[in-house]
Parts: sequence; C-alpha cells; structure tokens
Amino acid sequence: MNIVDLRRDTITLPTPAMVDAAFKATLGDSVYGEDPNQVHLEKIAAEILGKEASIFVPSGTMGNLVALLTHTNQGDELICEENAHIRLSETGGGAMVGGLMFRGIEDHSGVPDVSAVESAIRADDIHYPRTSLICTEITHYRYGGIIPPLEKIEALYSFAQKKGIPVHCDGARLFNAAVALNKEVGDLTCYADSVMVSLSKGLGAPIGSILAGSCGFIERAKRYRKMLGGGMRQTGWLAVCGIISLQKENIQLLREDHQNANYLAQGISHLPGIKIDFNQIQTNFILVDISGTKISGKLFIEKLKEKGVLVTLAKPKLIRMVTSRVVNKQNIDYAIETIGKVL
Amino acid sequence: MNIVDLRRDTITLPTPAMVDAAFKATLGDSVYGEDPNQVHLEKIAAEILGKEASIFVPSGTMGNLVALLTHTNQGDELICEENAHIRLSETGGGAMVGGLMFRGIEDHSGVPDVSAVESAIRADDIHYPRTSLICTEITHYRYGGIIPPLEKIEALYSFAQKKGIPVHCDGARLFNAAVALNKEVGDLTCYADSVMVSLSKGLGAPIGSILAGSCGFIERAKRYRKMLGGGMRQTGWLAVCGIISLQKENIQLLREDHQNANYLAQGISHLPGIKIDFNQIQTNFILVDISGTKISGKLFIEKLKEKGVLVTLAKPKLIRMVTSRVVNKQNIDYAIETIGKVL
Amino acid sequence: MNIVDLRRDTITLPTPAMVDAAFKATLGDSVYGEDPNQVHLEKIAAEILGKEASIFVPSGTMGNLVALLTHTNQGDELICEENAHIRLSETGGGAMVGGLMFRGIEDHSGVPDVSAVESAIRADDIHYPRTSLICTEITHYRYGGIIPPLEKIEALYSFAQKKGIPVHCDGARLFNAAVALNKEVGDLTCYADSVMVSLSKGLGAPIGSILAGSCGFIERAKRYRKMLGGGMRQTGWLAVCGIISLQKENIQLLREDHQNANYLAQGISHLPGIKIDFNQIQTNFILVDISGTKISGKLFIEKLKEKGVLVTLAKPKLIRMVTSRVVNKQNIDYAIETIGKVL
Amino acid sequence: MNIVDLRRDTITLPTPAMVDAAFKATLGDSVYGEDPNQVHLEKIAAEILGKEASIFVPSGTMGNLVALLTHTNQGDELICEENAHIRLSETGGGAMVGGLMFRGIEDHSGVPDVSAVESAIRADDIHYPRTSLICTEITHYRYGGIIPPLEKIEALYSFAQKKGIPVHCDGARLFNAAVALNKEVGDLTCYADSVMVSLSKGLGAPIGSILAGSCGFIERAKRYRKMLGGGMRQTGWLAVCGIISLQKENIQLLREDHQNANYLAQGISHLPGIKIDFNQIQTNFILVDISGTKISGKLFIEKLKEKGVLVTLAKPKLIRMVTSRVVNKQNIDYAIETIGKVL
Repeated sequence: MNIVDLRRDTITLPTPAMVDAAFKATLGDSVYGEDPNQVHLEKIAAEILGKEASIFVPSGTMGNLVALLTHTNQGDELICEENAHIRLSETGGGAMVGGLMFRGIEDHSGVPDVSAVESAIRADDIHYPRTSLICTEITHYRYGGIIPPLEKIEALYSFAQKKGIPVHCDGARLFNAAVALNKEVGDLTCYADSVMVSLSKGLGAPIGSILAGSCGFIERAKRYRKMLGGGMRQTGWLAVCGIISLQKENIQLLREDHQNANYLAQGISHLPGIKIDFNQIQTNFILVDISGTKISGKLFIEKLKEKGVLVTLAKPKLIRMVTSRVVNKQNIDYAIETIGKVL
Repeated sequence: MNIVDLRRDTITLPTPAMVDAAFKATLGDSVYGEDPNQVHLEKIAAEILGKEASIFVPSGTMGNLVALLTHTNQGDELICEENAHIRLSETGGGAMVGGLMFRGIEDHSGVPDVSAVESAIRADDIHYPRTSLICTEITHYRYGGIIPPLEKIEALYSFAQKKGIPVHCDGARLFNAAVALNKEVGDLTCYADSVMVSLSKGLGAPIGSILAGSCGFIERAKRYRKMLGGGMRQTGWLAVCGIISLQKENIQLLREDHQNANYLAQGISHLPGIKIDFNQIQTNFILVDISGTKISGKLFIEKLKEKGVLVTLAKPKLIRMVTSRVVNKQNIDYAIETIGKVL
Repeated sequence: MNIVDLRRDTITLPTPAMVDAAFKATLGDSVYGEDPNQVHLEKIAAEILGKEASIFVPSGTMGNLVALLTHTNQGDELICEENAHIRLSETGGGAMVGGLMFRGIEDHSGVPDVSAVESAIRADDIHYPRTSLICTEITHYRYGGIIPPLEKIEALYSFAQKKGIPVHCDGARLFNAAVALNKEVGDLTCYADSVMVSLSKGLGAPIGSILAGSCGFIERAKRYRKMLGGGMRQTGWLAVCGIISLQKENIQLLREDHQNANYLAQGISHLPGIKIDFNQIQTNFILVDISGTKISGKLFIEKLKEKGVLVTLAKPKLIRMVTSRVVNKQNIDYAIETIGKVL
Repeated sequence: MNIVDLRRDTITLPTPAMVDAAFKATLGDSVYGEDPNQVHLEKIAAEILGKEASIFVPSGTMGNLVALLTHTNQGDELICEENAHIRLSETGGGAMVGGLMFRGIEDHSGVPDVSAVESAIRADDIHYPRTSLICTEITHYRYGGIIPPLEKIEALYSFAQKKGIPVHCDGARLFNAAVALNKEVGDLTCYADSVMVSLSKGLGAPIGSILAGSCGFIERAKRYRKMLGGGMRQTGWLAVCGIISLQKENIQLLREDHQNANYLAQGISHLPGIKIDFNQIQTNFILVDISGTKISGKLFIEKLKEKGVLVTLAKPKLIRMVTSRVVNKQNIDYAIETIGKVL
C-alpha cells in the first residue's frame, strides 16, 4: 500500500544531493570547532539569518532552550503567546532548566498585541519576577502554521527594544513564512535578537537546527549547548545537508508544500460536515474541523490509516494535516479521495 | 492626623492578649522541635484545619513554596487560576526553586471549571511536562477577596482525586471565607490535600503562616522549610500569638472586617463616577472602579493620603481597599467622607 | 534534675532586657519596610559590619542562600572549604535553588590556601562552570569553632579581588571570632564582600540573622529573601532583640562562653582515654576524642543525658560540646564531674 | 606535513564500512521511534551492555545528564570520585539542570573505597540532602584512562545495593577497559544500574552515545532526552555507524590503541627528565610528567605542534597523549622521534 504521510514535516528525508555531498564530506571534531562543514554551516546560516553568528544544535528544542538560558537569569519571566510551542511542547525545559516563569497571552493571530505585552511586563517589585524575554513563533504551530501579522511582529519588536527586553523568535518553520510572504528570511529575523530555525523539517536535512544572534550571545550560548549535551563530534554529514538545505532553490521547494496544502484543503472543503478556515491555510498546515460529521476523530484517523493516509488528531474533532516534500500532488489526490470515502 | 490604613490586612498588630501571652511564653529551639509553643501551635492548627499535621513557616510565600516543592518534582506542571497569587506575586519561586511550569486558566469566579482543568491536564507524552498539582486560592486576592463557588471547589477536588492529582489550597485568607460562609474552616480544607493559612493577616498574629497536610507530606515539607531558611529558633512568642489567633472568638472578629468593607462600599457607591460590583464584596476587600471619574488613580490615592486615608492602586483606574482590625467603623466613616471630598 | 545543655549555642534565650524592649516595641509591616525596629536593626547591623546595607532574615541558612543567589548565576561554581556548613549542612539549597556546583577544598585550618583556590578556579572553557564566588566560614563549625588564620583570610580576599571573584563570609559565629581575637568584627568583615551573621546563636536573640553587603547587593538580595519566603510582617519584637544582641556589652558576653569552654576542656582533658586538641579550643566549641576509651559515643552521650548533661555526637568517637550563655561555670563544674563519673 | 594527533580519541573518523552502510541506511523520524536503525541500535546496545533497554543520545554529556536526572530528585546529593568527568568537565549540568549536590571523594585508584562512600552517605536529617546516586567512571579520564580495580567496583556496587542507592557508570571509555581486561563489557556493566558508553570515541562512530538501564529507567529517561533537546530526527546514518562500532571486531581494534600507547610510552620513557608511571598506562592514555625537564609545558606542546605532533597540556608540567585509530605505529615512531628532538 502506498503511504501518504501528512502527520508532520519532520519526516522529510535528505535529498539525493544532500546524501551525495554528505558522503564526500570532510569530518572533524565539532566540540573543538574542527569540523569544517559545521563551521561553514554556522557561518552561512548566520549570514542568511542576518545575524552575526550562529550555532548548530541537534534539535529545535535545544535551540530554543539554549536561547532562553542565554537571554535570561533563573527566576525571570518570559512573555509568549499562550499556545506557543516552547510553552506547551518542549517538556517544560524553560522552567526546569532555566527556572523561568512563562507568561502566556492568548492571541489567535499568533502574536500578542503590544498593549497586552505592555500590561504583562512586570513592575520592579520584589513580589514579581523580572520580565527579561519576549518570544515569538513564526509560523505558529498550534494555530495551524499561520504567519502572525508582520506589522504586529514589527510593532512588538520595536516596543521590546524601547523597553530593553530582547526578543527570541522560535522560527522552526520561519522559511515557510518567508516563502509564503515572498520575502527573504532576513526580512523576518530583523524583528528578533535571536532566532532558531530548523533544518530538519520542511527543508529536508536529516538532523539539526540553527540558533543565531549576536557574537556575544552565541559565545555564551555555546556553553549551554555543551552543558545540555549538544556538543556533537563529527557533524560533517549533518552540516553538509544543512548547508544544502539553506540553498535558495531548496528553500523555494517549500512553495510546493504550501500549494499542496491549499490543494488538499480545496479538495476536501466541500465534503459534508467538514469545516476549513482558509485564513488558516497560509503555509503547509491544514486544520480540518470534523465536528459537523458524526465520525469521531479517533475513528477518522484510524480509517484513513487503514487506507494509507496518515494524519494527526490535534483535538477530539480537529485533524491536523501537514504537507512536506515526502508527499506530491498525486499523493494529495489519493488523500482527497480517501478522505471522501471515509466520511 | 489620624491614619486610616486600608492598603492591606497584613498591617494588623497583635492583640493585647497575644502580647501578654507572648511575653510569658516558654521558648526553645524550634529547629529541633524544642519550642513547646510552636509544637502546640502546629498540633492545634492541624486539628482546626482537619489535617494530620502542620508546620509553622515565616510567611505565606514560604508555605506555598514548600507545598509546591513537596507535591511535585522539578519539570512538572501545576494548574492554577491565571491570576493566582502563587503565579503572579510570589517572585516566580515555583519556577526558580521548583522548576515548575504554571498553567494558568482564567476564571473570574476565582477557580477554574473542571472542564477547563481537564483539558489542561497533560497527556502522557515526552513533549509535555507532567501535571502533578492543582492549586486553588481562597479567598482570591486579585479578584477582590472573593470566595470561589464552593460547588466548583468541591467538583474540582473530586475530579482531581479521580485523576490522582493532589490539590493545594493557598488559603492565606481562608478564615475570611469560612466566616463569610458561616462555616468551619474544615468545611473548606476538606477540598484540598494541603492548605496554607496565614496567621499574620486578618487574624492579627505578627508573623507566620501554617502549612497543613498528611503526616507524610509534612514530614517531607520540613526538609524544604529548612532548605529555604524557614527553620527558626525561639519561635515561642510568634507561636503563642498564632495559637491565640486561631481561637474561635479571634477568628470571628473577621466578621467585623467584612461588615466594615460592606459599610465602606455602601458609603461610597453612590458617589458620581464610582462603580462598585457588590458581588465582589464578599469578605474584607473592596475594588473601586474610578474610570467614570476624571481623576487619575495615582492622584486619587495621593489626595487621600494627604488626608490620612491609605488605599492601593490595583490598576490605573481601580482602587483596592482592605479592611482589617486596625480600622473601625469610625475610621470608615472618615474614609467615606474623605473619598467624597476628594472626588 | 538540673540540665546542662552543651549541645548547641542556638538554644540561648533572650535576655530580660531583650524581652522587656521587645514588648514595648512599635511594630509595622516589614515586607513594606514599615517596621521601624527592623529598619533600625538593618541600619546599625550594616554599620557594625562595615557594609553599606543589610537585611534581616529568619535564619542563617536563608542568609547564606540569599547571598549565594545574589552573587552568582545558575550553573556557576563556588569554592569553599570542603567541610563548610553551606556545603554540608544547608540541605543542598545552593544546588537546588541556585543551580550551583560546590568545589570543596579540604583545609583543617578552616580556610583553603590561596594556591589551592587558584588551581581550583576554572579556566574559561565550555566544559567548565564559571567560578563566581568564594566562601569563607568564620568560625568554622565542623572543625570545632576554630578561627581560620587571619593572614590566610586576608590573602585569600586579596587574591579574590585580583581575580574579580566576590567573597561571601558565612559568619554565623563571626562575633565569637572577633571577641576571641580581641578585634572589632569590622576587622574581619573587611575581608569579604558580603557577610552573614547570626543573632540567635551565642548573642542570644531569639530569631534571625543579618546579611550585609553593598547597597546594590542588598537591593538584589531583597528579591531573593522575598522569593524564599523570608519577607516577614511585624518583626519588631525580633528586631529589637537583634538590636540589643549587637550592643558591645552583649557581644562581650561571648568571652565568658569561651572561658567556660576552656575551663571545661581543662577539667576533662586529664581523664583517661580522652584526647583534646587545645589548639582547637579557640571559641565556644570543644571536640572531645573518646577513641581512647572503651565506651561507644552513643552510650557515652546517653549516660551523660541520664545525668542531665547534654552533648552531641559529631562522629562515632568524637563528642561536640558547645558553651553558651545558658550554661555557667557551676554548670560546667557539674558537667566535668559527670563526665568523669561516666568514663 | 604529516599530522600525528594525540590530543584526544574523539577525533576518530567513521570506517569505510560505516560510511558505506550509513549512506544505504533507511531513515525515519527518531522522535517518534520511526528510524529503524536507531531502534535496532538501541536494541543491540542494550543487549551488549546487559541491560533491558537503551537510548541513543547525541553526546556522552547528555547521556550522563539524563542518567542523573532520571535517578535523582532535585536537591539530592550524588557521590563520585573527586576528579570525575561529570563533576569537573560537564559544565556543571548536574547542579544547574538537576539541582544536585556533588560529593567528591578523591581516590587515585579511580573509584572511592566503600568505607569512604559509607561515611559520605547522608544521615536522614533535615540539614542534609539525600544521597540518591553513586557514580563510577570507567576508564577514569583525569587519572589517565586507568581502570579502577574491579574488586573495588564490585564491592562498591554490592554496598550500594545494600543501601538501596543506584549506581550510574560513566563508561565513556568502558570498552577500552573491557578490552584491556580481556573481558566482555557486560562483566563491567553488571556493577551499575545504568551505564553510558560513547560510540564516537575510540570506537570510531561519528556521533553519539548510549545510555542503558532497566525498562522503567529508560522510559523515564526518554522524557529528559527530549527536554534537553536530544530528540533528533533522521538518525539512521549515525545509528548505523553506532551499530558497526559495537561489532566485536571493531571493539577489538581498541587493543591496538592500547598497544600503541604502551609503545609510545616505552619509546619516550628513557628521555632525560621525563617521568612516566607505567601503572597508569592501562588503556589508550599516556600522562607524561616533564617536570624533570627545563622546558615549559606550553612551549613543549607548541614545539611539537610545529612538527606535526599534537598533544594536550593536562597540567603545567603534565602532558596527555591519547592514542586512537587515527594514529598507527608509524605515526607513533614519528612522535617518539619528534619528542626526543624537542626535549
């Protein structure tokens, strides 16, 4: 049976070009800065992201955690959107490792209003932790890969600068946003002091993320990467894939994922009982509300699975589908057909 | 000038009976369980609170923090009302000391619905922290000393028990709730596995709070009290005041504070531009919305201060007034008159 | 039966003058800086200790922990003598609350050599935590209340200053050292950036310690005191005792404790099988090595207890005896006689 | 110029067999257990190590940190040899992330005596943290890759079991010990409840370590791996190398490294001013004491570097040389000759 995997975009596989290059890569001990490809990756990633420096880390979770540790002191408070990934889905590392309070502000645009952030910033009072970081998330995972309005992101960053509070951007899927907006990624990273981007999601590299920021920030970040266990040895294979994943033409492949997501949404939106908010479909995520149908979410995904279409249950009656380079238009056609049959 | 202090109920002074008893108290080294009065206080406090055991701590903040540490492991998540005191006003100790994530659920009744808590409890998944504690707050400070509906508290506790999640009650002003409801405090503590009550607020003891729970809980709590620095030496003076503060007749004095709060609210509610929600005035707090007046909150409290009436600015146009045994009806009359003049 | 309590000096009781002053004291809410006596105590304690500012805390453990938190960042390393009280007997708070590594250097003089500290200071390398604090302990508890050589303390401080590493002094019994050396306490505190002294040990106040340092240090320390739960309310009774405990004549009473310790040691040193190192008896502690006798340590202290003489088992064959103002020369005579009988 | 790199064994490169297998490997998303090679690696690693289960982690530092977090609760104390790698060279992660106190016991055999451990175990007392873990390190890095006496390791484990305290073995170079002792690695892992072994050191895999233990232990460990950021995606390339690195014939290659180390030591031991303790040369490390020469350590390694021989300065007059599969006998001959010339 053909499998159409719409569960996540973390399942992408390295391209033949990546495999080929990896296979030929010179290796060295990265803990001592001796892997030439990691050195190169960190250099070009910083350039692309418009920051002074960057480090390669084994996962987005580590990239975000290192950023939190580097920006803050234990006992501080950070402000993020209520349903941010760092708050909901990173195992509470910010509190356990960093001793941080999270102040969540719900905003379905994906980024809180300046006014809400302003009133959440703590007064200088011994009863309160210090607000020392604001986090954004682009695209916003829980809300279906949406791109928070750029003017809100810009306004928030400008406000944060006035307040002297740094901004970290969880940009696990920042390239999706840039492609969707027809912008360079630097047009987005300019609204954050540090940014984490994943190479191993839509971009196709097998492993790893990048954390970028100022030279001083990255210098301090290296210590936390080592402490957490992100100091890997011969990373060349992974780094070479990372380098290729950051090439323009590779990044532009995300456009296809977005088109496929839209095509899939169009294809199923007319099905009885199904509700899709097309405003949400901005990148490679589709949230399908099946509360108008009689089938339970669990049964729905099971039935699809039997026919080789894999999707995720986001909430009891909400299905998440994610496109990536492992699914093509033909696969989508099959998925549309299958979903129709199951309902 | 006569001062009418309506800022807080933490300003209460020990009664003559307390001072007298304190002065005669036998002292010992509490770190080694040798202060007879602290031993006695801990025994009767446990009885009154309907728990197996209790410990005396220098502050409510420590009592709550020790409870959090004792109930949880680092990296866990606790659920509380979004504007709970432990989340907003205890300097982030839960995160810094306990490595805990806070999951806030906003509910203006003062306690979240079972359904909201249910959906906030984490699934067993490596991406998520474990939900290992639910906290209630009675009376709820930020919402103006309100008493969350007992049936909601009961339902939440019953639900928590089914889920095997302990409940801690921040009962800094639990006696106010009991008095207002014409109940025994044990009728409220039965909906929590552990409870912290303050002796130094409305009850008038100079220093200290009680943390009560099961024998095993309190045994483990003692270690955290010591670690945080709550192991005090000759506590007898404070303990004797605590003992007296827990006497029925002393507890009943809170009723007067509540009557005074109501009297004050009545006295100023008719003033032009002033809005008071009488549903909120359940115990000894009054929240006065002055957004219908032209005066700024800052100027308002300054003008009152000049005339000897001290109140707190809760928000830019919201004034918090708190009655306690340091203000009597005559003081209230003066406050009413002064507020009228200032507006 | 008359009890001669030689277990600890934390059992001292407030003097009649303290009690008298306490119950005449004006009280206020210390969390808001409104207890006039705590304000006064903090002012004079700072002066006596030769520092810009100080805070009153409920225990020495909290004073030390607040100092550690204020001087360091999580993940740092501090250097102390291997058997320092903060390392052995403060429930691991430095690691749990502060995320600190402890680097212990054993030195039976009570303070490590500069050379040993120098080689323990971490190089700047991502594999290592940062060395950000050096702690001294005067008098040194585990080694029997000894006073580390002043020239070593001075050399260490001078070295630390060159390295830019702050020094905190755990001076729980610093006044004992000053009295024994016929010096002002300021002659000792000048070798530390911050210092914690206990008021509730030999000095006789019922509760509390002082943490002193620069204005900036104390300002930041206040937040940690609040977080840990050391923000107490009407502290006046305790503060007044603290004020009296810091009066010259009260401090000089420690001299008697030292004389009693010496007298006790003289009185039992000739007993068969008993070994006492008179170099150790510098203040109010006596370590009695009974390994030359056939009696077990446990049995020894039990037998003494039966006759009303209370001492502590420091190690299986090592007895700790501590003099304080609760024992007078007559008590000591009885203790000497009883020990003789038991052996 | 030919480079003979004797600095570390972390510089080893994957064998042609590894490279070949890696790029044929099927990949999957390891975070969801879908990389077949990581699944296989974790299965066979557990078998080889004689444990129920294992996980693959990006580094030895993460493997050790996850083990510490899984075995302990914050505020606990662990006992290890004073110069253990986890204490000295893992950036203090145990304290910062785990809130743990480290109790170091110096023992130049590489493992502390049972009696020393026994007296370091904390009594149950609120002043003390709980002793909840004992760590061993085989081979011992700081002492020159020595193998602590097996009978001491066995005795310690047997003692720990009696006390109910788990033992974790930092076995970064455990295979070196097994090969040197002509034993199976399981003959060593049986003296620990959990064990971390590195695949990327002498064994030649490019990246990664294994943490093994009971099923329950590993289940809990997975959460911490995710929290710290060790949840990697398509790990197949790395896992396949790990699988090959654990093949018997690959493990046996370590024997050559040991022979080379011995040969190198023999070759330079007669040089004037040089002192080598042949008892230390048990595996692939050589510590060369040059304090009998006039050359400074810094200059010595610089001169060698100029001639293409890379070594490490362990202390001002102590040189560490490490053999691995990147240096062969011919390289050693060149190193011997060059060292002779430089001195």
